[in-house]
Amino acid sequence: MLKPGDTIGILGGGQLARMMALAAAPLGLKCHIFAPEGDNPAFDVTAAHTIASYDDEAALKAFAGAVSVVTYEFENVPASTADILSAKVPVLPAPRALAITQDRFTEKSFIRDLGLAVPEFIAVASLAELEAALTRLGRPSVLKTRRLGYDGKGQAMVRDDVSAEIAWSTIGGAPSILEAFVPFEREVSVVAARSSTGEVLAYDVCENRHAHHILAQTILPAAISTQTEQAAKAAARKIAEALDYVGVFAVEFFVAGSGADEALSVNEIAPRVHNSGHWTLGGAVTSQFEQHIRAVAGWPLGSVQRLGRIEMENLIGDDVARWPELLAEPGLSLELYGKREVRAGRKMGHITRVIR
Amino acid sequence: MLKPGDTIGILGGGQLARMMALAAAPLGLKCHIFAPEGDNPAFDVTAAHTIASYDDEAALKAFAGAVSVVTYEFENVPASTADILSAKVPVLPAPRALAITQDRFTEKSFIRDLGLAVPEFIAVASLAELEAALTRLGRPSVLKTRRLGYDGKGQAMVRDDVSAEIAWSTIGGAPSILEAFVPFEREVSVVAARSSTGEVLAYDVCENRHAHHILAQTILPAAISTQTEQAAKAAARKIAEALDYVGVFAVEFFVAGSGADEALSVNEIAPRVHNSGHWTLGGAVTSQFEQHIRAVAGWPLGSVQRLGRIEMENLIGDDVARWPELLAEPGLSLELYGKREVRAGRKMGHITRVIR
Repeated sequence: MLKPGDTIGILGGGQLARMMALAAAPLGLKCHIFAPEGDNPAFDVTAAHTIASYDDEAALKAFAGAVSVVTYEFENVPASTADILSAKVPVLPAPRALAITQDRFTEKSFIRDLGLAVPEFIAVASLAELEAALTRLGRPSVLKTRRLGYDGKGQAMVRDDVSAEIAWSTIGGAPSILEAFVPFEREVSVVAARSSTGEVLAYDVCENRHAHHILAQTILPAAISTQTEQAAKAAARKIAEALDYVGVFAVEFFVAGSGADEALSVNEIAPRVHNSGHWTLGGAVTSQFEQHIRAVAGWPLGSVQRLGRIEMENLIGDDVARWPELLAEPGLSLELYGKREVRAGRKMGHITRVIR
Repeated sequence: MLKPGDTIGILGGGQLARMMALAAAPLGLKCHIFAPEGDNPAFDVTAAHTIASYDDEAALKAFAGAVSVVTYEFENVPASTADILSAKVPVLPAPRALAITQDRFTEKSFIRDLGLAVPEFIAVASLAELEAALTRLGRPSVLKTRRLGYDGKGQAMVRDDVSAEIAWSTIGGAPSILEAFVPFEREVSVVAARSSTGEVLAYDVCENRHAHHILAQTILPAAISTQTEQAAKAAARKIAEALDYVGVFAVEFFVAGSGADEALSVNEIAPRVHNSGHWTLGGAVTSQFEQHIRAVAGWPLGSVQRLGRIEMENLIGDDVARWPELLAEPGLSLELYGKREVRAGRKMGHITRVIR
């Protein structure tokens, strides 16, 4: 268990690390950021940082020696990095969560083995395997690389007019899965936390709208039945317990059908604070960032009570130019990430409206 | 008007500077702290700091050149410091507020000249003047140094059993005021902000309880009439307008009498964010720290809506050892200041309960 004054190490220097550090400070905890050269907005709000690559063993060992626990803002932490750190200091969430979620095939197999619904999927390692899989799953279906996909990168929708060859080349011929297309009504997610003593607390289920594969908007409550809401939270708990997870995580779901036919299937697990939980900054008693810090510090979780109806909107690329009008909107909560350069598709900030 | 990415300079590296910096970051603003050697918890949450004394002209000029605006966490900024900075960069709130509030005689004269009630006061510069003043104001009365008093320091209550000589030596024979003792029912304060366009927004009046002259507890709503609440807010507005003030400030009042006889008199003005406004972190839509940053950035003010009944409690000295139980209290908001050393009477953190 950490004490106030202790230091949490964070791998990654982006907006998630920044918001974790901003949440750690009021709890009396310091943060030390480890990130490669680049635009690292988390550096602006922390006293210590290390600029080094994730395979720099000496830098990792020095970092591990300077902190009481290590956490991370992204799931693609190399296994070797986690191993070097784990030898010297607790890494939370434990690296097993990384190993499972870094590979879509492993991740979906893990979820299916827990008895949770996932879209049908088949591993494909060659064009021939893709053709066989397409025969089984039909079109449309979705080809996704096993590793390193996010915000729609590393994905190809295989419709009637897309040949196996084209799809295979679109994703660069990388080891992949072919997944049955789910004709979903909506996408929802559960952001939840599990403490080191095994307490699990889930925020209310949120509904997510994407634009160009990037989260555009999160609203609460989600337009789903109470039964579906409970099923989503139960699934999140099951996943966290199976992973012996400590920290905040998100589970994304597809919701198909409606009424009595409403059904969930798990899309993916994010072993970290998540964009669909940004509304909790200002919209819940405890933000997901504070919750994650509490969990990895070995402390009790905070209240996940929601403070009203919620609309969270990402500010992508040039959206951030709206800051003067947004600042002037009464009661709106604005969070800018302090990134130096505006680029198309880049998450620059977000806003949350809490309708009390 | 500042833009996201700009830097605010803050004089002082204590908890108020720290909480201002933590509020500036989500608005996309950086902070640069200027403070002398010491325990400066604001350094832990800011990318830049200068360690130098407030009379180091070269350091002040370099600091002024590195920031877009300068603000401060304490009212005892030396006039010469403010002058050096003002020559190069806007200093907000404007130094006139410092000049007036640094001297109790000037401050109380200013308030009285606005037509606001203050306890009767007389400047005393010698033992003979103190004796004459005691003849006029009677006992009990309160002897206060004109400069550098806070948390009860530089004050002596002159009761029947205290001679003029003892009182005079207690405060070290410094230029002082003798003030009539107000037999108050309660102490309240208004925390308010004025923007660069002259908009004034006051938080609800809070009631303050002191222990050993240090703020112990703030509760809202204050047990005062609607008329008194409105009068307190109107007084705050009058003061801010007379000072052409930009930023957050607090006005402390004594409340004497009750019912139709309830009457306010101004105790003092703090030209900065204030301990009695700490409840706004978590207890109001916009915290006083964000509000101050918005004001000095030249931006519109945020909503001052209160989110429930409020109990704010300071963690003084060893109180901070209660952190494990406080962390476990559902819904409680804990703020620790990251100070390295616990000392008796030292403000180490605070907690806020919001009863919705």
